[in-house]
Amino acid sequence: MTAPSTLSNAVAPASADAARVRRVPIALEDRSYDIHIGNGLLEDAASWSGLPKARCALIVSNDTVAPLYLETVAARLRPHYAQVLSVVLPDGEAYKGWDAIERIASTLLEAAADRKTVLFALGGGVIGDMTGFAAAIYMRGVPFVQIPTTLLAQVDSSVGGKTAINHALGKNMLGAFYQPLRVLADLDTLKTLPDRELSAGLAEVIKYGPIADAAFLDWLEAHMDALRARDPAALAHAVQRSCEIKAWVVGQDERESGLRAILNFGHTFGHAIETGLGYGEWLHGEAVGCGMVMASDLSVRLGLMPAAFLDRMRTLIERAGLPVTAPAGIGVERFMALMRVDKKAEDGEIRFVLIESLGRAVMRSAPDALVAEVIRQHSA
Amino acid sequence: MTAPSTLSNAVAPASADAARVRRVPIALEDRSYDIHIGNGLLEDAASWSGLPKARCALIVSNDTVAPLYLETVAARLRPHYAQVLSVVLPDGEAYKGWDAIERIASTLLEAAADRKTVLFALGGGVIGDMTGFAAAIYMRGVPFVQIPTTLLAQVDSSVGGKTAINHALGKNMLGAFYQPLRVLADLDTLKTLPDRELSAGLAEVIKYGPIADAAFLDWLEAHMDALRARDPAALAHAVQRSCEIKAWVVGQDERESGLRAILNFGHTFGHAIETGLGYGEWLHGEAVGCGMVMASDLSVRLGLMPAAFLDRMRTLIERAGLPVTAPAGIGVERFMALMRVDKKAEDGEIRFVLIESLGRAVMRSAPDALVAEVIRQHSA
Repeated sequence: MTAPSTLSNAVAPASADAARVRRVPIALEDRSYDIHIGNGLLEDAASWSGLPKARCALIVSNDTVAPLYLETVAARLRPHYAQVLSVVLPDGEAYKGWDAIERIASTLLEAAADRKTVLFALGGGVIGDMTGFAAAIYMRGVPFVQIPTTLLAQVDSSVGGKTAINHALGKNMLGAFYQPLRVLADLDTLKTLPDRELSAGLAEVIKYGPIADAAFLDWLEAHMDALRARDPAALAHAVQRSCEIKAWVVGQDERESGLRAILNFGHTFGHAIETGLGYGEWLHGEAVGCGMVMASDLSVRLGLMPAAFLDRMRTLIERAGLPVTAPAGIGVERFMALMRVDKKAEDGEIRFVLIESLGRAVMRSAPDALVAEVIRQHSA
Repeated sequence: MTAPSTLSNAVAPASADAARVRRVPIALEDRSYDIHIGNGLLEDAASWSGLPKARCALIVSNDTVAPLYLETVAARLRPHYAQVLSVVLPDGEAYKGWDAIERIASTLLEAAADRKTVLFALGGGVIGDMTGFAAAIYMRGVPFVQIPTTLLAQVDSSVGGKTAINHALGKNMLGAFYQPLRVLADLDTLKTLPDRELSAGLAEVIKYGPIADAAFLDWLEAHMDALRARDPAALAHAVQRSCEIKAWVVGQDERESGLRAILNFGHTFGHAIETGLGYGEWLHGEAVGCGMVMASDLSVRLGLMPAAFLDRMRTLIERAGLPVTAPAGIGVERFMALMRVDKKAEDGEIRFVLIESLGRAVMRSAPDALVAEVIRQHSA
């Protein structure tokens, strides 16, 4: 399961040209598309050309991102669409529910938007997931474009076609596999990202090292300070390499019947933390960061990896500005119960993504007692 | 666009063997499946064999059908699944909304049902559409089986993978193309069907004549009395031929990019009647029956068909026990506005399915004034 290193120079120096637009193709037959990565993409005419013709476009954003970029995007769309609508939702995971889909659908239906209408998701992972799901189900499917404005969305959630909303009983429980027409990852939008969200995005970047590319893990250790300082070349490389690895995985397993599940390293523990605390307490990336510490420990306890691996992961995750200890308040019993409703669970058995060598992940179950120990060890 | 007559003997005598199980294949590559048509299918072990293994099954039904057949189906499923859940929803189009999906999802999540769980839709078109949609989005997709218990669902809505719920601003506006694993059309369940619902189902049966098979239209005229008397052989032939024509259309155009739209003959007018009256006033098939009268008249007024075609269609639709006049209370302006948000509309232009020769349909727009005349002519 090691990603081919030929995809890019995995240890490219951070001095690489940051200005050029990079394109990472996602190869999915008639659902193939490109991720555009670069600075100034929102202002670049090439970002908006070649999309399908339609009378109507709808931009979905949130009340944090809309004041910064909505008008820029709307201005770029107006030459292409007679009617450019927008829906601005409240910011946050707590609002990732049916109400948002209902608002999007009502806006479209009130404008008599037909099934050629193109949706644009302008925001982080929550906006991308909800807009993608709305696009998947409005009139049984309209095209959509992802414009991720957070690091997390650029390296993970906007790529690969997973769309969803939350249910009170579980995160991302209702959704669809539905591919965008294009992903526009404008690195300039990361300049306005709060530090806490940058760190949350780094959790998903870090993930790609242990699951698929040991050399990228080395690179991250060497460039973590540059990434947190938002060095443009370092960010460009981190986003590109992350997208390349994700593209390689998704290209082989679009609907998560096997390999794709490795992208959820740290997520089984992480989702339980998010649901246990109530959405919105911790950011998704923060929960994944802590979840990766737990999954690394479980890999060690099962004898797959040496103890030094846990220390290495915990150090890197801490350097990324992420929590490495879960709130003890969730309780071990509830934590386990929450993991049992994870989408990767089968017949009530929790399936963990574990590391068996640097750059290689496996799916494994584990004895409850061992998992409980891991939870206790990393809760406080 | 004429369906190949080799699919079956289109003018088979009603004395054909009614007892045997007929199978109509729907050819959609890895989403292919069979429609089983026959008497006693619910009791037949073959109906339930060969489905994917899972811990959990969920039967979705309504409070009209559940007392009749839920226990029979549950008993058949228990040998195959450790946990057989059920959700019984209120009967009727008015309940075809998000609340139903939420109830299904909650039941599944409370039972920690994983993504191998198989859903069974036991009921008419509303149950089939909602259950299919729930299956399409629960954990981004679980398998499901259609067990249509109304004529309408057996000949139309349970076949072809269109799933949806209604929105206050339009019928079936949120949904997915999602194919079932199998369709079990047990003709015995039609014995408990109220006359009004039998007539509603006949509307969708009649539709297949003018759009795809002139000989089937002849056959329907010869056997309408037998069908209303629930002659088993006549029903078996009507269901089989309807499914064959639908299979032929869907096999060529799964996602309604072209040909498939002909299956909506009468539906553009019909949906406007349903939405205009509020869901639940008229049955879907009743609205389609009246809609076919209007669409036939529009075909005549546009010079595609001779005036005798309208008389022929109106007579057959009346003989099926269906209304041929829409309630004048909707008003022409509102009627037109409702049609403009139809999913087949493009750039605000209404696209009608019209007949250009017996057995051949075309998609056409029409002058507003002409459409308004048609609405007025057939409203009272």
